[in-house]
Amino acid sequence: MNRREWILIAGAFAITVLAGILTVFQANAVLIFVISGGALAFLAALVGLATDRLGAQLGSGATGVLQSALGNLPELFVGIFALRAGLTNVVQAALVGSILGNSLFVLGLAFFVGGLRWGTQRFTSETPRVIATLTLLAVAALAVPTLVHNLHTPAAGHEEGLSIACAVILLVVFVASIPVSLRGGPTKLPKEPVVQVHAWSIRLATVVLVGAGIGSAFVSDWFVAALTPAIDFLHISAAFTGLVIVALAGNAVENVVGIQFAARNQSDYAISVILNSSLQVALGLTPVLVLLSLFIGGAHLTLVLAPLLVAALGLAAILSTVITYDGESTWLEGLTLIGLYGIIAVSFWWG
Amino acid sequence: MNRREWILIAGAFAITVLAGILTVFQANAVLIFVISGGALAFLAALVGLATDRLGAQLGSGATGVLQSALGNLPELFVGIFALRAGLTNVVQAALVGSILGNSLFVLGLAFFVGGLRWGTQRFTSETPRVIATLTLLAVAALAVPTLVHNLHTPAAGHEEGLSIACAVILLVVFVASIPVSLRGGPTKLPKEPVVQVHAWSIRLATVVLVGAGIGSAFVSDWFVAALTPAIDFLHISAAFTGLVIVALAGNAVENVVGIQFAARNQSDYAISVILNSSLQVALGLTPVLVLLSLFIGGAHLTLVLAPLLVAALGLAAILSTVITYDGESTWLEGLTLIGLYGIIAVSFWWG
Amino acid sequence: MNRREWILIAGAFAITVLAGILTVFQANAVLIFVISGGALAFLAALVGLATDRLGAQLGSGATGVLQSALGNLPELFVGIFALRAGLTNVVQAALVGSILGNSLFVLGLAFFVGGLRWGTQRFTSETPRVIATLTLLAVAALAVPTLVHNLHTPAAGHEEGLSIACAVILLVVFVASIPVSLRGGPTKLPKEPVVQVHAWSIRLATVVLVGAGIGSAFVSDWFVAALTPAIDFLHISAAFTGLVIVALAGNAVENVVGIQFAARNQSDYAISVILNSSLQVALGLTPVLVLLSLFIGGAHLTLVLAPLLVAALGLAAILSTVITYDGESTWLEGLTLIGLYGIIAVSFWWG
Repeated sequence: MNRREWILIAGAFAITVLAGILTVFQANAVLIFVISGGALAFLAALVGLATDRLGAQLGSGATGVLQSALGNLPELFVGIFALRAGLTNVVQAALVGSILGNSLFVLGLAFFVGGLRWGTQRFTSETPRVIATLTLLAVAALAVPTLVHNLHTPAAGHEEGLSIACAVILLVVFVASIPVSLRGGPTKLPKEPVVQVHAWSIRLATVVLVGAGIGSAFVSDWFVAALTPAIDFLHISAAFTGLVIVALAGNAVENVVGIQFAARNQSDYAISVILNSSLQVALGLTPVLVLLSLFIGGAHLTLVLAPLLVAALGLAAILSTVITYDGESTWLEGLTLIGLYGIIAVSFWWG
Repeated sequence: MNRREWILIAGAFAITVLAGILTVFQANAVLIFVISGGALAFLAALVGLATDRLGAQLGSGATGVLQSALGNLPELFVGIFALRAGLTNVVQAALVGSILGNSLFVLGLAFFVGGLRWGTQRFTSETPRVIATLTLLAVAALAVPTLVHNLHTPAAGHEEGLSIACAVILLVVFVASIPVSLRGGPTKLPKEPVVQVHAWSIRLATVVLVGAGIGSAFVSDWFVAALTPAIDFLHISAAFTGLVIVALAGNAVENVVGIQFAARNQSDYAISVILNSSLQVALGLTPVLVLLSLFIGGAHLTLVLAPLLVAALGLAAILSTVITYDGESTWLEGLTLIGLYGIIAVSFWWG
Repeated sequence: MNRREWILIAGAFAITVLAGILTVFQANAVLIFVISGGALAFLAALVGLATDRLGAQLGSGATGVLQSALGNLPELFVGIFALRAGLTNVVQAALVGSILGNSLFVLGLAFFVGGLRWGTQRFTSETPRVIATLTLLAVAALAVPTLVHNLHTPAAGHEEGLSIACAVILLVVFVASIPVSLRGGPTKLPKEPVVQVHAWSIRLATVVLVGAGIGSAFVSDWFVAALTPAIDFLHISAAFTGLVIVALAGNAVENVVGIQFAARNQSDYAISVILNSSLQVALGLTPVLVLLSLFIGGAHLTLVLAPLLVAALGLAAILSTVITYDGESTWLEGLTLIGLYGIIAVSFWWG
């Protein structure tokens, strides 16, 4: 373990404890919201690091499986606690926001920063094409139940059954896609940047992983409890909070890493990190939460969303497909992606 | 004529007679429905064979024209009888289901089977691109009247005139696209599998064709008459019946052939057979039925569909365009197409 | 200045004076409408010529900026007067019609004519890809406020604020895209046709430009004043008038030029002229009119459109993206584009 890793662990521990103290002493909700949001970002980074180091001991195949399974652990806990608190709308907005945040805002920033510095950037278009395909399936799985509900088709009244069926289909495709990732298919990266890694023992990695997981569970609880009073205090709409704030906080680290890759002209890595993060939410986390919500008490999560969220996802899926399909990116394409994110975010500003 | 051809003719004759006997003796509607559905699949195969053999005598140009004109003869008869019986919804669902069944389920199966066996399969992307373009036009021709009706735009009340105009436009483009097929444009196939064909005389081919055509007309009548009681008995929704059962039965043979091509790594053939079948329904059969419905008595067919059907078509058109545009397919892409078909089929399950 | 240029100037002057005389003497509204529409087409051509000649004196960079800023001057004046007359629907339909007319009808005609004469035409796909990306952003900027309004999301009631935000985002991206055009990015043309140009002095170019601009302002006023009585007289719907007649008249010259390029097998030029014209309306003229409408009196222009207009734009954007993305065009693709234009135009025929 090197110094940066120690700092991350110590930082995550400290901010988690701080969030806990603030919660116990019933500090101002906005403060708790901000601090526990920051703690979640740190813990998400720590889960990612420990997963990576554990995978390094178990082989590259295991890394992929572990990352697919545990990569969104903090977001999973936030989702569970928010559903138990009945905040279905916030959960749906945060899931969509996580997809939009990655595939529009962060991808756009990466293309913008990378393009300004390096001109037209080229990358293997196989990865974004596979991800585009799978993302379109996820959009369809959200669009169909939403349309069934809003168009009052004969299946209206069966939205829960339909959502479960769609969730199972998404999970089957997601699980099937993991070996493709492992065989290096969609995430095959041409020139891996060699990073000298101080090995972690399996024991150490497991301890950190379990610790970060438990920490995530506690912090998620505090974060969700502070959410509603913080929103009320700040007069922001619940949808905007989920779509923009919760979503960006939950993916802060992947975002920074992805943009750094682009700034170093490692476009393949940037795209893989950013779009896989988006895909895991769309094809993994979302259906898992739908199925889990049947058992954890609280509100059942269905795939019936606000129609505007589905339309936003559809526009984002089409735009990012058109932009990445040719294996080239420019700063203007980045700006266009950011522009679409801005249009969507503004449309949810008013509560 | 070789032995397999004799077996096909004899089988088609036998099952047609059986369907007739069951109908005359008023057997159980579900039994008639299943047997006459099977007879339609046999007769469709026979029409295809006779068209091919007749074309072989008349030259390759004529084959294309004949196949475009007669390839969907049994489905045309089913459509006509169903419209006369006032089953507009079933006809619309069957037309959409035929397009979705081919461009999602069968294409997906072909990619899945072929990809598992041969890895990434490559094909000339020109054919699927032309078909994607034409399919998008057909989707638009269904979407616009549906939107006019459901949005109550000023043209609402003129849906029939609008549908006729759209049908004429589709037919003009369809007829114009046939010479492209003949010149080998979109269906130009790089390496034709040489099949030793026992020549048929023009007379024999014509007799078989006329016989199969007349048989199709009778069986279609029995099939449609058994449809409503069979649905009632089985408690399936009419939309699901049209979308999934009628659609898959009507295309059973092309489907098997297409998947066999993919399994033998002849991707170009597989795609050409599967997508052309879908295109003929979208751009040929659908507008022909709209125009015919004005003259045959019974319900007038318009292009005002259930909005969910149009949305499903739109999603299918976009997904299959993105998947086929790059001239490569994988089993995961096949699974994704099947997944979308599953989502759509489930959403019409509840009646 | 050569003879053709003199004829254009004299013609524009004559028809402008004629339109003025007819207006002063209160001639038949249809006559004024037609003559002033023709005058607008002439003045638009003159503005284009003078901009080009002024740019030739100032350097190629300045030409791009000037064309982006002044290329749609007559349409801008028509928009302003129509908004002052409260004809918001006509303005919106004309803006959408201008985009659809270029990216479907004129592009389709260019591909059709060029393809019949030269077979499959090839072009640099970079230009249409950039334009496709930017056009999708513009479609989103129109779709989101329209959906907010029609779905009654929480932001309903704030459509004007939302429209202003979207307009600002579009303008930022538009302005940012101009240097890309200047550096030769999206409009980089491989083999510039060398045309011997008689130089104009800066003074002459400026005088002609100012004169044509002032003329446009007057004629726009007369054109808009004659619009409503002419529509009433001819029993055409206002939407159809804006979508088809005003839109095609306003772009008559670019259209002819673009089709001529295609007929001479200069596909890159054809696509650049036709699609850039469409893009300037979508990303430049539309947001400028939204912002200007806050200050000029009369109706405020928002981006809340008739939903069918937005759907038509979406279909057009997807179809033209799929057709141009591969850098090849055929006459059948041209016919398909024209077919979609026909479907859309018919759906607005009934008033």
